[in-house]
Amino acid sequence: MATLADIGLAAAINILSAFAFLLAFAILRLQPINDRVYFPKWYLKGVRSSPTHSGTFVRKFVNLDLHSYLRFLGWMPAALKMPEPELIDHAGLDSAVYLRIYLMGLKLFVPMAILAFAVLVPVNWTNATLENLKVEYSDIDKLSISNIAKRSPRLWAHLVMAYVFSFWTCYVLLKEYEIIASMRLHFLASEKRRPDQFTVLVQNVPPDPDESVSELVEHFFLVNHRDHYLTHQVVHNANKLAKLIEEKKQMQNWLDYYQLKYDRNPSKRPTAKTGFLGLCGKKVDAIEFYTSEVERLSKKAATERDRVKKNPKSIMPAAFVSFRTRWGAAVCAQTQQTRNPTLWLTEWAPEPRDVYWQNLAIPFVSLTVRSLIMAVAFFFLTFFFMIPIAFVQSLANIEGIEKAVPFLKPIIEVHIIKSFIQGFLPGIALKIFLIFLPTILMLMSKFEGFISLSSLERRSASKYYLFILVNVFLGSIVAGTAFQQLHTFMHQSANEIPKTIGVSIPMKATFFITYIMVDGWAGIAGEILRLKPLIIYHLKNFFLVKTEKDREEAMDPGSFDFASSEPQIQLYFLLGLVYAVVTPFLLPFIIIFFGLAYAVFRHQMINVYNQEYESGAAFWPDVHGFARAAMTLLLLNIHFRKP
Amino acid sequence: MATLADIGLAAAINILSAFAFLLAFAILRLQPINDRVYFPKWYLKGVRSSPTHSGTFVRKFVNLDLHSYLRFLGWMPAALKMPEPELIDHAGLDSAVYLRIYLMGLKLFVPMAILAFAVLVPVNWTNATLENLKVEYSDIDKLSISNIAKRSPRLWAHLVMAYVFSFWTCYVLLKEYEIIASMRLHFLASEKRRPDQFTVLVQNVPPDPDESVSELVEHFFLVNHRDHYLTHQVVHNANKLAKLIEEKKQMQNWLDYYQLKYDRNPSKRPTAKTGFLGLCGKKVDAIEFYTSEVERLSKKAATERDRVKKNPKSIMPAAFVSFRTRWGAAVCAQTQQTRNPTLWLTEWAPEPRDVYWQNLAIPFVSLTVRSLIMAVAFFFLTFFFMIPIAFVQSLANIEGIEKAVPFLKPIIEVHIIKSFIQGFLPGIALKIFLIFLPTILMLMSKFEGFISLSSLERRSASKYYLFILVNVFLGSIVAGTAFQQLHTFMHQSANEIPKTIGVSIPMKATFFITYIMVDGWAGIAGEILRLKPLIIYHLKNFFLVKTEKDREEAMDPGSFDFASSEPQIQLYFLLGLVYAVVTPFLLPFIIIFFGLAYAVFRHQMINVYNQEYESGAAFWPDVHGFARAAMTLLLLNIHFRKP
Repeated sequence: MATLADIGLAAAINILSAFAFLLAFAILRLQPINDRVYFPKWYLKGVRSSPTHSGTFVRKFVNLDLHSYLRFLGWMPAALKMPEPELIDHAGLDSAVYLRIYLMGLKLFVPMAILAFAVLVPVNWTNATLENLKVEYSDIDKLSISNIAKRSPRLWAHLVMAYVFSFWTCYVLLKEYEIIASMRLHFLASEKRRPDQFTVLVQNVPPDPDESVSELVEHFFLVNHRDHYLTHQVVHNANKLAKLIEEKKQMQNWLDYYQLKYDRNPSKRPTAKTGFLGLCGKKVDAIEFYTSEVERLSKKAATERDRVKKNPKSIMPAAFVSFRTRWGAAVCAQTQQTRNPTLWLTEWAPEPRDVYWQNLAIPFVSLTVRSLIMAVAFFFLTFFFMIPIAFVQSLANIEGIEKAVPFLKPIIEVHIIKSFIQGFLPGIALKIFLIFLPTILMLMSKFEGFISLSSLERRSASKYYLFILVNVFLGSIVAGTAFQQLHTFMHQSANEIPKTIGVSIPMKATFFITYIMVDGWAGIAGEILRLKPLIIYHLKNFFLVKTEKDREEAMDPGSFDFASSEPQIQLYFLLGLVYAVVTPFLLPFIIIFFGLAYAVFRHQMINVYNQEYESGAAFWPDVHGFARAAMTLLLLNIHFRKP
Repeated sequence: MATLADIGLAAAINILSAFAFLLAFAILRLQPINDRVYFPKWYLKGVRSSPTHSGTFVRKFVNLDLHSYLRFLGWMPAALKMPEPELIDHAGLDSAVYLRIYLMGLKLFVPMAILAFAVLVPVNWTNATLENLKVEYSDIDKLSISNIAKRSPRLWAHLVMAYVFSFWTCYVLLKEYEIIASMRLHFLASEKRRPDQFTVLVQNVPPDPDESVSELVEHFFLVNHRDHYLTHQVVHNANKLAKLIEEKKQMQNWLDYYQLKYDRNPSKRPTAKTGFLGLCGKKVDAIEFYTSEVERLSKKAATERDRVKKNPKSIMPAAFVSFRTRWGAAVCAQTQQTRNPTLWLTEWAPEPRDVYWQNLAIPFVSLTVRSLIMAVAFFFLTFFFMIPIAFVQSLANIEGIEKAVPFLKPIIEVHIIKSFIQGFLPGIALKIFLIFLPTILMLMSKFEGFISLSSLERRSASKYYLFILVNVFLGSIVAGTAFQQLHTFMHQSANEIPKTIGVSIPMKATFFITYIMVDGWAGIAGEILRLKPLIIYHLKNFFLVKTEKDREEAMDPGSFDFASSEPQIQLYFLLGLVYAVVTPFLLPFIIIFFGLAYAVFRHQMINVYNQEYESGAAFWPDVHGFARAAMTLLLLNIHFRKP
């Protein structure tokens, strides 16, 4: 039962801490030594070069220009200044459209908040149900629907508002979809000619005793798409070759390092040890050793390349078929090729960077079985994930550890360590699971056999969204884990369930307000500080970086992680929509989240992230669908309290 | 608690009555006067001509050849003799594949029955749970799973059998699908060139201020399908014209009749009255009057035709576009035509007889709304259909009628009539509803906007199947109407529901055995007797038939009604699969049904039904899906009694 003052205090603390983060960011980003962490995108574009190469020694690492510190929030207008077409050009359509999700949040919730505060808050506040009940209540409860008695005529206001909000959501979603569809079409049309616009991926080429896959594909398309067929490329299973190339690259890097060392100091030829991590083994002349290693691997890779090309077993029953015209490719991608609808499956080829090569050879029948297995697995993951964690927790207690590793007993028995283990270990098991959850979901999606990274990300995102919906949203409302909820629901009659949820929702408003502040605000401020990449970069720079190429790699900004971050935004949509009618007081917190997140991510898209692939905003239908699901919950929720 | 003897008696009665039906059929079909009722297909083919035109007067109506009566079951081998390819040639693929549903029933249930009687019946029979319980029980219960105690190890036999039966069902369904797919492809490939193989239906042509629909379509396809486009035909709204043509046809028929009359008796010019039904009004010279009427309507139709052609409002935003090649049509039908996926929707044109013209002009957005409305309406129809019927029943009692029509009071008060009303009226309301249900479902499907008769029938069939599943199958098991069931289920916890159903299923076996005999066996025997068409034909022949053309029309055999008969077959699949493990004793009754139905319908397909359209067995995926749903119920059912 938090009061307004409590919430105000919490908000102040969170605003201050977010402010501290931003201040830290403002200071850190101005240090030349961190330049590659906060502006890697510009390095990759070749526009910016290391500031560490010029100036005095100290100036290489620390910014002593005090004037620049005064404009410490200057990044924000800078980030917002870049117009959208330029942003698309700079960072790609995926990034620009991803930002529009936050913008959509603002478009949705600002008018909603104004309307809710103008209509619903007075309606709730002027009622006296809680006063009459003589129960303990806070100001927030007085602002919420809790202050309206059952079957009160005032509930009509909430019902009407729920419909107004729903229509507004529908309208915003529709408009946004139209805008993004036209942005996508414009983007695709204005791109340079790219091979994937002329290429179709053919899977499930049937085996033929007389012809190789390549001949078969050529004959098939020469016969059936005579006028448009240009060429094709059979897919080889070259995973081993890829490994060899990777190894060779590493050796080449060491060679460069020692070469550089030798060039700087020609009097002494560098030596290296051949054993584990260069720490043990025979001492040899480093340059000679790595030259021979590179040669050896080059040869090995060449033979492997020959093997892959010639061995029919390494050829997968899939091919990229290119056409003379976009029309020819479009026709082939959209039509059925043979009588048997499970053979010669065609679809638009993903762009080269987007292909997930490992899944190209999965046969059609296996795909349905795989997705069924994964559906069942996902159900159990969502509802029973607490069981293995509880098991690990039961093992990871003091007695368990003492039994498993008896020689650690004296250390564990130390008071501070003991209390640390008892207090932290159970939580850590859960935390580790939650950290690895997106990875687990991605593995599950990979098993399902999607052939492009973008579809894998979209699939993982929808799994993650469901998990959050069940375990965070419903899990917080109906106390207990999803498994316990399921148990409750199974043993409750069907028409009791919505009531249970409906009653709990307003009670949890203060919890979610805190959640938004801690997870949302602080999360966003943490995002811009890039603490993890900052530390990793400096560690790598100190211990591992040997050549300029290493430094480039250490800088790797990565792409924004659609699969795990988008569902988290959707949680805020969900909270906003569900609470818009129930506890409008929650809306300003969400608006602050969306506004802050928009500015921060716009800055990150411009200066940091470098997208791995470009799907042309193909993820929007998913975003649209999630938001629509949230809107359905808003309507469901309000209908359980009919006036 | 019916005993084996009870069931045996019921079976004997039903067999005898079915036998009586067959005997009646054997006698009736040999009478020349009924020839057009029992062999209309051959008349329509032009192979057979009226036997009433030759022989003595009596022989025209009654068959006096006693020898022919001795072979009174001769139709059965004759019906089974025709090989399948000839049947496809004679009656079309739809009919031949429809018969395969019955054949599939035999393929499924004969091995199942053998296995169940070899394994499950001894396992059930040798147990003594019912004896030990000292409850009243019949032999049938001893043969069923009721005789096995909860958690008895003997239940493993049932579980294993359930999986064996499921795999067998999967296997038969797969094989059957393969056979029918190849039959369909062979049929389509071996057909003569038909216009619909080269034609695509385009819907949602966007409005254009400068061009008519026809010009727009022509320009669009000349630009986008330059090499293959041949011609197009815009769809006109000609419902009024169709009415005029129909009227003219009627007048022409009367004219022919009087012409014939005059030819036979040239001394007297026939006269007619112009008023209602020719019973009142001015007396005029019939030939002159009808000649002028036909002329008047011809002129009217011509002006209406001109109006339809010229008036842009009568042109619908849809067109049939024909291509030079099948390839061109296939490409157009399968690809998206414009950026906006809701415009220029293309699909294969249904064959001309199959088109449902009224639905061609429904816009895309309206379709989704319509199907949503119908989904809700169907839900209420299924679960709450008893409410309006109960309302009608409450009105249709003695007091209600006496109030509404007081002058009937003396008649109603007569004892016999009173008891008739009291006993029959409530039942009649329900019966009328059930008779009209397929029509209602068809109207609902039409509202949903399907554009071909075949898809309308398939859609109605799936609705009817759901209705039967809920109201007949579950409705019989969980006593009470679907609405009461829904109420029970809503107020019961989710994991109680399967238990409720699982316990009730074996108890209802004897009811369903009776149902199979009365509804299935007698229904099939009634089908071959064609009592309704027989009576209607003779009534029409006596009162209405004036010309040879009228006789042709009175004979109209109709097509078999997929929308209502197929779901009824599926009920037997459902019963067979669900009871195969629970009460194997039910299986022989189902096998007899499928065997008898196969012979009867093969006879009807050969001699009676004349299909309105030919969809090339496009309904098979639906049949497959229904059977698969039944199989799922079999597995669900057995898993609620885990050993």
